[in-house]
Amino acid sequence: MKTAILSRNHSGGPPPGRRERKRSETRQRIFRAAMRLFAERGFFNTTVEDITDAADVGKGTFFNYFPSKEHVLGVLHEVQLSKVEEARSAAQAGKLPIHDLLRQFMRRIAEEPGRSQLLARGLLATLFSSEPVRIMLLETMTRGRRILGDVLKLGQERGEIRRDLRPEEMARVFQQSVLGTVLLWSLHPPASLNKRLDATFEIFWAGIRASRELPS
Amino acid sequence: MKTAILSRNHSGGPPPGRRERKRSETRQRIFRAAMRLFAERGFFNTTVEDITDAADVGKGTFFNYFPSKEHVLGVLHEVQLSKVEEARSAAQAGKLPIHDLLRQFMRRIAEEPGRSQLLARGLLATLFSSEPVRIMLLETMTRGRRILGDVLKLGQERGEIRRDLRPEEMARVFQQSVLGTVLLWSLHPPASLNKRLDATFEIFWAGIRASRELPS
Repeated sequence: MKTAILSRNHSGGPPPGRRERKRSETRQRIFRAAMRLFAERGFFNTTVEDITDAADVGKGTFFNYFPSKEHVLGVLHEVQLSKVEEARSAAQAGKLPIHDLLRQFMRRIAEEPGRSQLLARGLLATLFSSEPVRIMLLETMTRGRRILGDVLKLGQERGEIRRDLRPEEMARVFQQSVLGTVLLWSLHPPASLNKRLDATFEIFWAGIRASRELPS
Repeated sequence: MKTAILSRNHSGGPPPGRRERKRSETRQRIFRAAMRLFAERGFFNTTVEDITDAADVGKGTFFNYFPSKEHVLGVLHEVQLSKVEEARSAAQAGKLPIHDLLRQFMRRIAEEPGRSQLLARGLLATLFSSEPVRIMLLETMTRGRRILGDVLKLGQERGEIRRDLRPEEMARVFQQSVLGTVLLWSLHPPASLNKRLDATFEIFWAGIRASRELPS
């Protein structure tokens, strides 16, 4: 799944041949090695050389794929945006209630940053120490919010979601909920992130679902 | 108000005399100067000397109040815990609906970290770069969650809040909501944090309030 997402952004064409598959694997290997190092020692303390050593590729190869260290985190943003787009496609296909789809999506979007508490803390740290990373996240969150807004709008049209709030406003609260859940989880002694996300989602959903209330 | 909170933790006794008041003012001045520097240049790049220069006190005076740089952030934790305790006292006094009280509390608890986006980012950065700060936050969040749980339990007993969720679970989601809102706000071009918090609270409250639903 992850390979598919990563290679799609890279090739975008017919089923990848051997060469394309190798390129995609190398790109992913560099990305994974970099993420591990960022998590272990922080973004600024990791050099391109550390990454190429860990990924077992030459420096030239690295710059073939990424113009700079910051651009490696861009892959994570691509992965996350692909997941939001998948959620929108699924919503448009209409096979699942928006409730089920959003619940799954909350887990899926937290999967990458939530691979380990150390990784989550590392990613959050880079966010506050690197201006380009912060700007990049801002853009990704804004794009993601629009796409997620489309999903919530569909939920409103289908009568699943309350109509008195703007879809983008609800999408923002969704993003905040995921960020806050991952943040608090990342600080804590080991706990199940998915359980935390499900509890978060339970309250979020009860907050946005269409009301069947008696007039008071 | 802030002075009262800070001095109460310090003196805890009768109305402070001149000397006590001066001690409290000095402690607060050091705290404020440190927070400003942490926000501007980060926790690790700020020395005790920078703080004493900015606060216009001697190094000896600093160590009179704080055993270490980390302990300065402890004042922020005291301030935050005082606010949660105030919310619980207000809930116990029962003069306001829990809804109104929690809505105000969400603004109040975000006030300190939310003084500026730079400050919020600085505080979040120290959280991920300093182990002692992370441990301290963990403890404060755990204590805060118990106190906030008492408030939510009162809300359940008074029929304002749904009874099928554990108070501490709802308190955790409340904390996550505030963290996520401040985090996303801190990354963005200037926006009103209070408006963001109100939108967050609207959905959170709708998620935890007692249901007046028709059986479906």
